[in-house]
Amino acid sequence: MTQEDILKNPEKYDLSIETVGKGTLKSPMKGIQFVSEEDRIGLTTDVKRIREFFDKGVTAPSLEAAGPRETIFHDPAWTRAGIVTCGGLCPGLNNVIKGLVQVLWFDYGVRNIFGIPYGYRGLNPQYGYPPITLNPDVVDSIQEDGGTILGSSRGIQEPSVMVDTLMRLNINVLFCIGGDGTLRGAHAIAEEVKKRRQPISIIGIPKTIDNDLNLIDKTFGFETAVLSATDVITSAHNEANGAFNGLGLVKLMGRDSGFIAAYAALATTVVNFCLVPEVPFTLEGLFKALESRYASGKTHAVIAVAEGAGQELFKDQKERRDASGNILKNDIGEFLTEKIKEHFDKVGKEINIKYFDPSYMVRSIPAKGTDAIFCFQLAESAVHAGMAGKTDMVVGSMNGEFTHVPIEYAVNERKKINPNGTLWHAVLGATRQQDYFSGKGKGSK
Amino acid sequence: MTQEDILKNPEKYDLSIETVGKGTLKSPMKGIQFVSEEDRIGLTTDVKRIREFFDKGVTAPSLEAAGPRETIFHDPAWTRAGIVTCGGLCPGLNNVIKGLVQVLWFDYGVRNIFGIPYGYRGLNPQYGYPPITLNPDVVDSIQEDGGTILGSSRGIQEPSVMVDTLMRLNINVLFCIGGDGTLRGAHAIAEEVKKRRQPISIIGIPKTIDNDLNLIDKTFGFETAVLSATDVITSAHNEANGAFNGLGLVKLMGRDSGFIAAYAALATTVVNFCLVPEVPFTLEGLFKALESRYASGKTHAVIAVAEGAGQELFKDQKERRDASGNILKNDIGEFLTEKIKEHFDKVGKEINIKYFDPSYMVRSIPAKGTDAIFCFQLAESAVHAGMAGKTDMVVGSMNGEFTHVPIEYAVNERKKINPNGTLWHAVLGATRQQDYFSGKGKGSK
Amino acid sequence: MTQEDILKNPEKYDLSIETVGKGTLKSPMKGIQFVSEEDRIGLTTDVKRIREFFDKGVTAPSLEAAGPRETIFHDPAWTRAGIVTCGGLCPGLNNVIKGLVQVLWFDYGVRNIFGIPYGYRGLNPQYGYPPITLNPDVVDSIQEDGGTILGSSRGIQEPSVMVDTLMRLNINVLFCIGGDGTLRGAHAIAEEVKKRRQPISIIGIPKTIDNDLNLIDKTFGFETAVLSATDVITSAHNEANGAFNGLGLVKLMGRDSGFIAAYAALATTVVNFCLVPEVPFTLEGLFKALESRYASGKTHAVIAVAEGAGQELFKDQKERRDASGNILKNDIGEFLTEKIKEHFDKVGKEINIKYFDPSYMVRSIPAKGTDAIFCFQLAESAVHAGMAGKTDMVVGSMNGEFTHVPIEYAVNERKKINPNGTLWHAVLGATRQQDYFSGKGKGSK
Amino acid sequence: MTQEDILKNPEKYDLSIETVGKGTLKSPMKGIQFVSEEDRIGLTTDVKRIREFFDKGVTAPSLEAAGPRETIFHDPAWTRAGIVTCGGLCPGLNNVIKGLVQVLWFDYGVRNIFGIPYGYRGLNPQYGYPPITLNPDVVDSIQEDGGTILGSSRGIQEPSVMVDTLMRLNINVLFCIGGDGTLRGAHAIAEEVKKRRQPISIIGIPKTIDNDLNLIDKTFGFETAVLSATDVITSAHNEANGAFNGLGLVKLMGRDSGFIAAYAALATTVVNFCLVPEVPFTLEGLFKALESRYASGKTHAVIAVAEGAGQELFKDQKERRDASGNILKNDIGEFLTEKIKEHFDKVGKEINIKYFDPSYMVRSIPAKGTDAIFCFQLAESAVHAGMAGKTDMVVGSMNGEFTHVPIEYAVNERKKINPNGTLWHAVLGATRQQDYFSGKGKGSK
Repeated sequence: MTQEDILKNPEKYDLSIETVGKGTLKSPMKGIQFVSEEDRIGLTTDVKRIREFFDKGVTAPSLEAAGPRETIFHDPAWTRAGIVTCGGLCPGLNNVIKGLVQVLWFDYGVRNIFGIPYGYRGLNPQYGYPPITLNPDVVDSIQEDGGTILGSSRGIQEPSVMVDTLMRLNINVLFCIGGDGTLRGAHAIAEEVKKRRQPISIIGIPKTIDNDLNLIDKTFGFETAVLSATDVITSAHNEANGAFNGLGLVKLMGRDSGFIAAYAALATTVVNFCLVPEVPFTLEGLFKALESRYASGKTHAVIAVAEGAGQELFKDQKERRDASGNILKNDIGEFLTEKIKEHFDKVGKEINIKYFDPSYMVRSIPAKGTDAIFCFQLAESAVHAGMAGKTDMVVGSMNGEFTHVPIEYAVNERKKINPNGTLWHAVLGATRQQDYFSGKGKGSK
Repeated sequence: MTQEDILKNPEKYDLSIETVGKGTLKSPMKGIQFVSEEDRIGLTTDVKRIREFFDKGVTAPSLEAAGPRETIFHDPAWTRAGIVTCGGLCPGLNNVIKGLVQVLWFDYGVRNIFGIPYGYRGLNPQYGYPPITLNPDVVDSIQEDGGTILGSSRGIQEPSVMVDTLMRLNINVLFCIGGDGTLRGAHAIAEEVKKRRQPISIIGIPKTIDNDLNLIDKTFGFETAVLSATDVITSAHNEANGAFNGLGLVKLMGRDSGFIAAYAALATTVVNFCLVPEVPFTLEGLFKALESRYASGKTHAVIAVAEGAGQELFKDQKERRDASGNILKNDIGEFLTEKIKEHFDKVGKEINIKYFDPSYMVRSIPAKGTDAIFCFQLAESAVHAGMAGKTDMVVGSMNGEFTHVPIEYAVNERKKINPNGTLWHAVLGATRQQDYFSGKGKGSK
Repeated sequence: MTQEDILKNPEKYDLSIETVGKGTLKSPMKGIQFVSEEDRIGLTTDVKRIREFFDKGVTAPSLEAAGPRETIFHDPAWTRAGIVTCGGLCPGLNNVIKGLVQVLWFDYGVRNIFGIPYGYRGLNPQYGYPPITLNPDVVDSIQEDGGTILGSSRGIQEPSVMVDTLMRLNINVLFCIGGDGTLRGAHAIAEEVKKRRQPISIIGIPKTIDNDLNLIDKTFGFETAVLSATDVITSAHNEANGAFNGLGLVKLMGRDSGFIAAYAALATTVVNFCLVPEVPFTLEGLFKALESRYASGKTHAVIAVAEGAGQELFKDQKERRDASGNILKNDIGEFLTEKIKEHFDKVGKEINIKYFDPSYMVRSIPAKGTDAIFCFQLAESAVHAGMAGKTDMVVGSMNGEFTHVPIEYAVNERKKINPNGTLWHAVLGATRQQDYFSGKGKGSK
Repeated sequence: MTQEDILKNPEKYDLSIETVGKGTLKSPMKGIQFVSEEDRIGLTTDVKRIREFFDKGVTAPSLEAAGPRETIFHDPAWTRAGIVTCGGLCPGLNNVIKGLVQVLWFDYGVRNIFGIPYGYRGLNPQYGYPPITLNPDVVDSIQEDGGTILGSSRGIQEPSVMVDTLMRLNINVLFCIGGDGTLRGAHAIAEEVKKRRQPISIIGIPKTIDNDLNLIDKTFGFETAVLSATDVITSAHNEANGAFNGLGLVKLMGRDSGFIAAYAALATTVVNFCLVPEVPFTLEGLFKALESRYASGKTHAVIAVAEGAGQELFKDQKERRDASGNILKNDIGEFLTEKIKEHFDKVGKEINIKYFDPSYMVRSIPAKGTDAIFCFQLAESAVHAGMAGKTDMVVGSMNGEFTHVPIEYAVNERKKINPNGTLWHAVLGATRQQDYFSGKGKGSK
């Protein structure tokens, strides 16, 4: 189910947000415009499409607008908030944590805020990690460092065990920062909470450096990751230029979608071939395209490949094992490096490949500039939602506005690059790779 | 007239875009989703508000969607495009130039592209600057440098002189990159062209590092400027911490609006007082706030002041003249530095002020990361509009979509920070400056 | 008295280092090569010159080598060390502090280390600033931030008061990090200590971002300052290119010597005129040189001026006063900006000046790369000297080796750029400014 | 043969420099202090050691001082200079090329300068790469990019073929920028030239990012490589902190010596284990050390390993082959990653390893700050040497002065970290790794 699916069959989807109870307390916030429960952000900004809905007597599908509510559910004086970070690192985790603490503390007067250490494990007493007390002093300068001060772990724990812990700690608002798996875990916690009829709000803050969440335009950390990837690509470009028929091959994050590779190609404009999971290619096609480029008089090339690209190429691939007999996983970067070398050896043409795998380097740095602000705004939205008693939801950004999205819809399907859309067209324009794949070989410098 | 004005009285405003003629040629672009003339981006994403329009039988106010058209007006084979950059530097100028050249050349096959040197002066033969021939090779790596390869100048030239030049050079699509004044100049050129019934498209690409254009969410270069401003603020923070009762005072760009100061405050979270044109303050209030902060045990403070802030303070100010008798202009940064020093001297309290004026340093750097991409996308939209025969318009970004905006509406009024809106609330949250202005003195670290 | 003076009349100068007592304790350091008191670093590396001394029966003048001694004076178990940072900020202050703490703690086992807050003021009880307890945990990540965690102040306090404090706190090794004034203060403290026959070692660590100390090749922070200055010059270059006859004028630190300006000119190679205190120039000469450059077809120019350059130009200058009647100090950057504008107005030629004053921005950043290592090594040398009972000295670097220098010689005279030496020749080569000053106008791009 | 060997048996080594003929032409340089052939830089700065030589009636061993000579051999008007870059990239290659061109052109008036493309291959007509004409305009902004504008290749070509080419091109001064192999090649060319009695000067500019040349304190690019490595280590530190018992493992350049790893450890001070080729370790020792660290309550660790470290561990290692049967080379980074994982699995303790291989990213960036200046100064020295008719030598830096070194001595043996010296002691101090290797487990944060 994608955004487009909902726009086509809006009646099938319920985008309303659950609550743990009715907000009856007056918000302590002053001098601020409150958001009403009727404020909703349309899934499309296209007035023509919206008109069609109204013409059919249907309301255009929309998401609840994020923001402070005039009446809230959780009493700040009694609120005990928990924050947990799960999965791989992403720029901005510490900014989100700091934002949550600041808004809870200063805007709502919440004084009991706990950091759950090492992801969902911190909610499983078997690990024995004690919660970390958080306040504005503790988080004062954490945004200067990459990573997460709470630590993280992968995987989820048994929901009933986690809810036991929440109840023992008397936590009534839990903020879960993490990716797909984490959010599914948050949904499971919310379900368990509902079963026990507890007034505990579960609010997700989606983290995916690949920027591939459904119904969400932009996720935190992505902007910084692109910035960081551009430096690697510049290095690859320099290396490629430094040898006759040089080839700089850069593997970037992106298991299911190629957004980082595509954006980095656009931001640098020195990439000649951008390979993403959404657009299949054959080895022969790539070999020909490279030969076509070198034949056209260009003596270098740069390839940016998303880690999830070309997975179909491994089908005929013999299982690779290391000396100990362990199966080696299919790494598209190393695979292409090896295959391209083999091919050029075979046809007796020179090529000088330099392979770059920046891996964790693009994700363990601090969030920068406007990305840092975006983290703060997400945290603000999350706290407002939590204090209002919302639950089983994530905060997101859609058409430039902050929204509430039911967890199940956010994680239901991955957003992907549309090969017929404007983003991919821009990438084709910046790389001119079609000229080489088609053998015309004019291409870009 | 602001965006809100239009939403309140949509019947008063005509947001349609003029053309120099009907598009009858088939676009040479292939494998791309074309945008229809009926595609329009609503001024609001709030479904409730949109419904109200429909209920009244009115179409919700909207802007033409940018993007490639299936039929175009200008024949690429005969097209001679001109590009001119005017006014002060801004990160991303070279990216926009490169984007225009690439899209014209590769997507439309336009082979005659001219750079007009040194702003509108380059269209006045009296200066004798010869046009610069542009092609993909010339612009290949210009995005690595700040500034503009075309050079720039301030002010406009006589429209009739400029149109004479356009006609002599046979230019039929002119791209004008610049701020308010430039765009008013572009409008004047478009008017003159209309008077002469010439098929010359005039397309503006709005440049304002202050991000303060009407009907436009985001302008290019702003993201990079914020990133750059954060480094200065970090320096000021270090200096402030380095002396007893240290004060780091940073002046940032923003003549009429305080967006850069506000965003930089949010991005760094080390600013204690953010002063912007939209929120007046008194010297006495500021003195008290500073005293209140130091009295609370904090031994440092950081002020970020937009250059246009506090202009009302100069009313009672004696004219300042230098040794040669020249009037010194009112520089809020130097003024505050002097006044705060005087005040603390008078009351016998210690303060150690370090004043930072990064001036041009935040604007003459290259665009980075996603900002660079945004430049490219704006350039794409501009070329599509120009080739389609649109005129007297600028390309913009609204609710995450690219749009066409009539020039007169874009420059009609400046966008400002809403002191009751979420941005300013976030700034107050990050700085806690109200605690000091109100004398409560708890404030942030 | 310069290094050259000593080489010419070695008999006049006593470069030996004083001690507070004979080292009789065995050093706790293991597995390290100790330095003997006979190890001395020659003031010259030129073997021909050294031979001449020996031929005359004189020992070539030399400095004591820094490094760990096999026997030390201060008993680590009883040692109470103090660290004080004075004067303006400089990259690397926190690195030096961290290095001192680490070496004292881990190499010698000293457990009582105190940070003196806000410079020499912290040794004057009248200010009431309590000392800060330092240990490896406290200083663990301070090197990531610019500035000094101890704070700083200018000026010195009464030596007898400061020695009273040292005695009351039982401090027996004091590390004074600061510039000329600070080191003179350290000398005064050492004198007072000597008068009272106290076993207190006073060790200076010279701080001058201008790298202009006598008998010392290199001071910490300089490398980072040059790195930082290059960014500003790149911005100025972009601005200069952005306007017809553009001029980017950058003022850099350097009151008495122009090392930062000269190095930044060399590091960027885009500076066209480098103006330093050591090489006088006239306004008329500069005007002609600029005219000559523009006349040669170049449409931009970049000037890097050290703040102490051209002070002789102010002699005939009328006193400048602001509106309140205060004397404005002579700022060479603003002065040149104004005068160049006036001149070009008078002769009716166009010029577009952009003035850059990065001021504190080059000094309040953290030390980077090898500069950070240099800080650590200086700290190491300082601790070894202090524990060995040396006093009234600074640690320095000479011909690539760390040395001990009597304070009075280090601060006796400023090192300056030799206008006939290789550094200045390289600057002339990189800028080609002589071509313009001589009116030949070929110059660099 | 190391520097120390020469100091011990100076009579065995001849450090004098060969020439292709006697300098009889007056240098065109003006206003500069010329260097005399008698100026020599001592191999030691230790006055005590120098005295011992003189006492024995021996001259202390020394190197010829670099710098401009008053009389030169090659007539600038007839000089045709060649520049070739060989081997892997290194920051600063373009700075050196630019410096050579500027000094040849402006200081000597040489107008025929050729870039030899793609290393020594460019001197072999079989490849057919045409030489590139160089002048100040061509090299004007090349220093902004990493890599080399000339391209590079590995390996040398037949000396007689290369000398044929030099003679055909009438090149009489050849500058060879490269590492060990390149310099041996340059030596072979010089030998061939000598055999043919041609007046062709062969001047080497040593390039080794590992900074491991004999008789040379510092090589260009090293400073920038260290700066770049610090960013990777910071990322690894963030990743290590982000997981329970996290381990960030970074592989850095350094085949035979661990200078980059050691300097990066010192510059960041967050490395807990620095592993270099000069200091052997066992896997068991490393496992114990890691266990000891985690057992001490620290939940993270950072390892910086030089690529040449631990090669002795592979002796018992079964040959590793990939799917195609190719032998996989021994990568210490991947090897340690695998072995540590296996060990912790076996003993049932948790560890979360993140492996970083920045590879080319530390070497393909432009030289920064003072490193850029150093490149220029090396280039200056090289041109002065070449024009003076020197040959079969490299330019170097020793005790802070620029020198001439016979090629054969520079490449004779690699400089290594002295495990008993101050550098390694500082690394042990910064990492505290001995505490863990010895099982005491106090260590650093």
